[in-house]
Amino acid sequence: LSRILITTVPFGSENKHPIELLKTQGLDYLINPIGRKLTENELAEMIGDAEVLIAGTEPITKKVMERAKHLKLISRVGIGLDNIDLVSAQQYGIKVSYTPDAPAPAVAELSIGLMLALLRSVQTANLQLHRGEWHRHFGRHVSDVTVGIIGVGRIGKMVLEQISIFKPFRILINDINSKIKLPSSLKCEWVDKDYIYREADLISIHVPLTEITRDLIGHAELLLMKQDAMVVNTARGGIINEKDLVAIMKTGHLNGVAIDVFNQEPYFGELAKIDRVILTSHMGSMTLSCRSRMEIEATEEAIRFLNGQALQQLVPEELYKTQP
Amino acid sequence: LSRILITTVPFGSENKHPIELLKTQGLDYLINPIGRKLTENELAEMIGDAEVLIAGTEPITKKVMERAKHLKLISRVGIGLDNIDLVSAQQYGIKVSYTPDAPAPAVAELSIGLMLALLRSVQTANLQLHRGEWHRHFGRHVSDVTVGIIGVGRIGKMVLEQISIFKPFRILINDINSKIKLPSSLKCEWVDKDYIYREADLISIHVPLTEITRDLIGHAELLLMKQDAMVVNTARGGIINEKDLVAIMKTGHLNGVAIDVFNQEPYFGELAKIDRVILTSHMGSMTLSCRSRMEIEATEEAIRFLNGQALQQLVPEELYKTQP
Repeated sequence: LSRILITTVPFGSENKHPIELLKTQGLDYLINPIGRKLTENELAEMIGDAEVLIAGTEPITKKVMERAKHLKLISRVGIGLDNIDLVSAQQYGIKVSYTPDAPAPAVAELSIGLMLALLRSVQTANLQLHRGEWHRHFGRHVSDVTVGIIGVGRIGKMVLEQISIFKPFRILINDINSKIKLPSSLKCEWVDKDYIYREADLISIHVPLTEITRDLIGHAELLLMKQDAMVVNTARGGIINEKDLVAIMKTGHLNGVAIDVFNQEPYFGELAKIDRVILTSHMGSMTLSCRSRMEIEATEEAIRFLNGQALQQLVPEELYKTQP
Repeated sequence: LSRILITTVPFGSENKHPIELLKTQGLDYLINPIGRKLTENELAEMIGDAEVLIAGTEPITKKVMERAKHLKLISRVGIGLDNIDLVSAQQYGIKVSYTPDAPAPAVAELSIGLMLALLRSVQTANLQLHRGEWHRHFGRHVSDVTVGIIGVGRIGKMVLEQISIFKPFRILINDINSKIKLPSSLKCEWVDKDYIYREADLISIHVPLTEITRDLIGHAELLLMKQDAMVVNTARGGIINEKDLVAIMKTGHLNGVAIDVFNQEPYFGELAKIDRVILTSHMGSMTLSCRSRMEIEATEEAIRFLNGQALQQLVPEELYKTQP
């Protein structure tokens, strides 16, 4: 019987340090033997007597917690909390920690790469050439477009800083928290979201999935966007309504989108039929160094807990109020 | 009978200004009616009595010039001169102008986008998802890799400046011209090319195609590279030997490559069968603003010539010595 259940996969695969930490402490652990994101039922069956769950994005629901008689800490490898029923966790006395700083550099850099690729229709040319078609696509410079960033927290702020290097024509930003301080050297304009949808050529989304942001961008918002606008979502599936996105892109609207996150993962949906969509497999934090850092931080938190030491990465109280 | 033959396509398609310039001057012109890059024979047949050729990358050979009884100026839309037999042009008294500054921002920005995409295996994930396969690929941060830049002229220098923002672990550079001055703020190391092949994780090529650079990177150089190295070529086809590249990638060598330029364009070769290759269709300078600027500059040079004014963008003498 293991005191620690590790559901996130891969874990310790490229950097063995998190596993060595556990072994040094003499702690028993079980790594998700199914090898992919678990369903609610699979997790409910697997949770057993674990005291600590080192978790990924699988659904950690009330039903799971009911079965988890000994669970006292969920240590999330990552920043998103949309998969955890925080209110139930509180009721069951289960603490929740996370690693909010670790993913930002990796997610930001992927987002910038996707933005630059979309601007030049790299994905469309690549798909065409791989099936034997040669078409030359006109693209645009960052300096010729208006960039819109929705959400300027840890990740969005980094995207803002990096894209600024390429001197966009304008940068429009929006965040639910209007008190965020940004370096005064950054030339950007606080506007409302509808203004971004209407005016931006290239939109990148960096908000958590909460009850407020679910379906944030649906048919109406997509229609507000310019015919040749481009959108990047490396945040969470469900923020852009997938069905609405597929439907509107089939009409020819939007020049390109890059989607790394989906309602249901693995994703095998209709976006795959549209050439001008870049699809990646929830790879925002999938760099060797970011993944290592997240796994090590989450493991250290688990060890602190089991050793009776103070936790250092508890989810702050205010995030309990914004549950989806 | 037109005094100006425009072979490069598209021309004046997105921005009409170059065509308006010609019309305002009352100049006759013919735009390549075949609508794609011409072969040597097609150009030889089409050249007729044209006095000025506003040229793309089609072969402008001795044979073409023999047929071009009235040709006095080749005004190249772009920077590469590998398609023009400069020695024969000199013999026939044909002047050659080009637009060396215009393409740099567009080529550099595409190169950066391709580098960021390769680092995260965006191309592989995208191809897989588009055919219904979900695989998560580990990537690397720019800050975790050594970047090598071969050629730090107009374009390479811009790539160097832009990638520096992402703080590579090391930046190695090489250029045939060791007198190039770079801003002292840039942290980079001048090394020989073999050192770059051996040590760099991510290599980007920014040299012209000349007799020295043809087949610069063949089997031996590719083998020197790390097993998981990545290479971007937005310069010219022929600099990396295509057959050697295909052969070595089929063995599993190299983590990914991005190729925008080919021996023969349109390209329909074997690289298309390898998922981890990003293929684009010679789109380095294909942004609206870059393309407009190149077309306008080349057209203005043609007009200056036909009006008896001094040329402003003549190819410098030293480039005549490095012909392929």
